[in-house]
Formats: sequence, C-alpha cells, structure tokens
Amino acid sequence: MEQLEARWDQGLTVCVGLDSEYNKLPPTIHQWPEGTPRIKESVSRAVTEFNQRLIEATHDLVACYKPNWAFYLPHGADGIEALATTIQVAHLHGVPVILDAKVADIGNTNKGYVDFVFDYLKADAVTVHPYLGSEAMEPFLSRTDKGVFVLARTSNPGAGEFQDRLAFGQTPLYELVAKDVQEIWNTNGNCGIVSGATYPEELAKLREVVPTLPFLIPGIGAQGGDVEKTVKAAKSRFIVNSSRGIIFASNGADFAEAARAAAQTLHDEISQHRSAA
Amino acid sequence: MEQLEARWDQGLTVCVGLDSEYNKLPPTIHQWPEGTPRIKESVSRAVTEFNQRLIEATHDLVACYKPNWAFYLPHGADGIEALATTIQVAHLHGVPVILDAKVADIGNTNKGYVDFVFDYLKADAVTVHPYLGSEAMEPFLSRTDKGVFVLARTSNPGAGEFQDRLAFGQTPLYELVAKDVQEIWNTNGNCGIVSGATYPEELAKLREVVPTLPFLIPGIGAQGGDVEKTVKAAKSRFIVNSSRGIIFASNGADFAEAARAAAQTLHDEISQHRSAA
Repeated sequence: MEQLEARWDQGLTVCVGLDSEYNKLPPTIHQWPEGTPRIKESVSRAVTEFNQRLIEATHDLVACYKPNWAFYLPHGADGIEALATTIQVAHLHGVPVILDAKVADIGNTNKGYVDFVFDYLKADAVTVHPYLGSEAMEPFLSRTDKGVFVLARTSNPGAGEFQDRLAFGQTPLYELVAKDVQEIWNTNGNCGIVSGATYPEELAKLREVVPTLPFLIPGIGAQGGDVEKTVKAAKSRFIVNSSRGIIFASNGADFAEAARAAAQTLHDEISQHRSAA
Repeated sequence: MEQLEARWDQGLTVCVGLDSEYNKLPPTIHQWPEGTPRIKESVSRAVTEFNQRLIEATHDLVACYKPNWAFYLPHGADGIEALATTIQVAHLHGVPVILDAKVADIGNTNKGYVDFVFDYLKADAVTVHPYLGSEAMEPFLSRTDKGVFVLARTSNPGAGEFQDRLAFGQTPLYELVAKDVQEIWNTNGNCGIVSGATYPEELAKLREVVPTLPFLIPGIGAQGGDVEKTVKAAKSRFIVNSSRGIIFASNGADFAEAARAAAQTLHDEISQHRSAA
C-alpha cells in the first residue's frame, strides 16, 4: 500500500492488466527481429517477451500491473515461469504487481497460496474472495508487507445474483463486505476492495461507506465501464484497470507503442476528470 | 456425476483429500528402498510417489480423490507436474478426481481456468466460489462432461461472517446459494455443493432445501467434524472428505497401509450410520 501511495503521489492511477493470452500475442513476438519465424517457440519465452516490452513501454505511466493467473496457468510450468519472470521485470522497473488470483480457502490451506503468491511469485498484493470470512484469511491479512484486495462488487453482468442480496432487509451484500473489510479485515492497514467500473452507482455507494479504503477498479475498456462516471464515483485512492484495451491495442509490430498510447489516453482521461471534480 | 453415481452404487462415499504437502511427507519417501537418502530429490517425484502409493492402497475403498492445488502451487512447475501425474494415476485406477481450486472470475477469465483444470490437468470436477453468480460461471457450467461443486457452507470457524447473513430478513446466504445452484446453475445436471461437516445443523437444513444435489462434505478428521451427525444430516448422495486424517495417518514406512486403515475406518463408520438411519 505504501508503494501505491507513492505512485498516487505522482498522479499515477492506471493499472495495466497483463492478461497476456498466448494465442492472442501479435505474430511479431514469434519471429526473429528480421521477420523469420523462430524454430523452437516456448510459451514462457513468448509471453515473457510480450510482457517485458509492454512494461518497458508503460512503466512510467502506471500505478501497477495486474496479471490474472488464469491466463498463465493453462500452460502449466511454462505459464508459471512466464508469470514469475513478468513480476520480476515489473519490479526491475520499480512498479508493484497485484496478482489477480481471486483465491480464498480455509486458514490451513491459505498458507499454501501465501507461499506461492507472495514468496514464490513475489507478487506485492493479491485479490481474494470474501466468502469464507476474515478468520480464514488470516495467513494473507497477517502479511503486513503485502496487500489484499477483497472482491466487493465485481464487474460482470450477473454480479448481482448474490452481491445484491439484501441482508437484514436493507443492506446489499457487496456493501456489507466493504464495511467488514474496513472494520475487521483491515487491522494491519493492508486491505483494499475490488469494485467494477461497470456499476458506477454501486461504486459511489461504496466510496461513501468506506471513504479511505483503496479501490481496485476493473471493467474499463472491453467490458464497457465509463471513465468519467468511475472517477466521479471513486473520487480518490483508486487504481483503474484496463487489460485488453491496452495490451492488445495493436496486433502489429507496434504493439508496445500502441499500448503506451492507450495507457496515456486512459491516464489523461482520468487526470482530466479528477481535475474537473 | 455419472462416475460418482457408479461409486455410490458400490457403497463408496469416502473422498481422500490429497493435500500432500512436500514438507510433511514421511522420510521413507526421500530414501531408496534400502534406506539410503536419494542423491537428487525433486518435489514432483516425491509427491507423485507418495500419492501413487496412497492411491494404490485405497482406490477400491473410495468414491473419489480431491487434491487441493494450494498444496502443489508453492512448488511452481514441479508442483503442477505432481498434480497432473497424480490425476493420471487416479484415472488409471478408475477413480474420479475433484480439483479443490475454489476458483471463480468473470466469464472471459474463467475460460482460462477451464482450460487448465479440465483440459490440461484433466480433473473431472472442480470447486468454485459462488460470489460472481451463475452468469460468470458459464464456461464451467456448460462443460456437461465435468462437475462443479459450489461453496455453500464452508467448514472454517469464521464461515458465518457472510454465509450467515440473512437475506430479506429471513434466509441465510448459504441457503440462498444452495437454492440458486439447484434452480439456476444446475441446468446441465453437473452441479453439487460444498457443505462442511463442522456445521451439521446447516448441513441438515441444506439437505431439506436441495434434496437431491450431490454434497461434497469436508471437515471430518483434523477439523473436528462428527461422522454420525454428518451422515444423519446429509442422508444420501454425499461424499465425505478426509485429508490429513488419512494421508498422514502414519509418518513411517507403513504410511500407505495406515492410510488404507484410516479410510476403511471412515468408510465403515459411514456405512454403519447409514444402515442405522
């Protein structure tokens, strides 16, 4: 969270989602510089090179990177290697990394996730499900050197199925989750919540309920979230994630430059609406 | 689910949790048969051998195996390899495997998990969080050849933080989840729910609410769940998981025989209470 504060102090709020699906990489990644195809290609090499070039092109413009491990795991060992190396590259450029893993199990089992996410991969923060409650999440919460972002309101169309259920006839579940995170989970000051840009009213409501908690906001770009509404709702202490809209901005040899341009556009749009507010 | 039905027809209800932590393996695993230490040890080889010997010793006594990937991931590539090979060994003995991964993300991202869990690792079923709702889970639910177990009531001490929240002033969240799984998620007949043995009253309540849904019941053994209460509450169409109580029943060279004895004891106890009911 201190690293995030430092990035915020520099006016940086963009989070680049490194959802670098191997099958969607630009063809240039699989070729030698002069254009001939590589003879023996590996997922790890290709994905790592793609991410490295994205990071080199954007690191001074962003608050953090957020790879989602679901796009790496299907490649097994090769995917894990790409993920670990990508985090290392981000750190070489001084940028923190949130691993989007959406994990949560009972306490004894969460120790395994903590070992993997924080100590093996060396991510700086992780996303988690709230369903098992704070007691189970102690292995994450007690890591004062790491951050924990708890899903409150997700960005998907069907998010309301359980998240909108009213507890005690009044308060929707997503709001109870945010309150509990602030009051119970956040004793070490290392928690934030996830709230989707696709639901700006819920986002504004959450900002009222938890005025100072850091927000990780997905749903901009391919998912259709609106930047102006998001900035007005979240006010401050937020990072706005865009994945496909930045990393796949171009499928050509200029993908890194196109990613920088897309990140710059998002950064400028956020800054403009913040000044207006 | 058909494989599970076939095992139930044979009276098999025990699920062995292959939470095979490398650091807890019996010393004999790291030695040559004559007792001298192996010169170059690998996590993958050691964990795979441990699981293989457990499977060889118990396959005719159990309904399924359930490795939790949190105990494999901390070893990176090596852990993934052990997990894939373990699933293969279980299949060679004709036993289905539930991967305890407790995943759930937005639809586009869930495709990555589906690729990894079902197509790369070749697990027969997976555990998932309910929080994002059924819409997001379509990539899992549409796989009619695979099973999906949704967390309803978890076994941990703090499970109630959100799961007991009353919706519309009446119904606790865990019950709403089970109802939705039956009515909305289960259109392809490939869903079950997870309900912990540590909460037999909630388990009994859930059995009333969803009379025919398969139950995956963790929490027996190290977590303190009671077999008699569990069987009375769940009635039928359930599997009872025990992990540490079976796989670490002995730390000696007889670990596989001890695991079989522990699985047999649990099997007999369940059968006895089922006949009594």
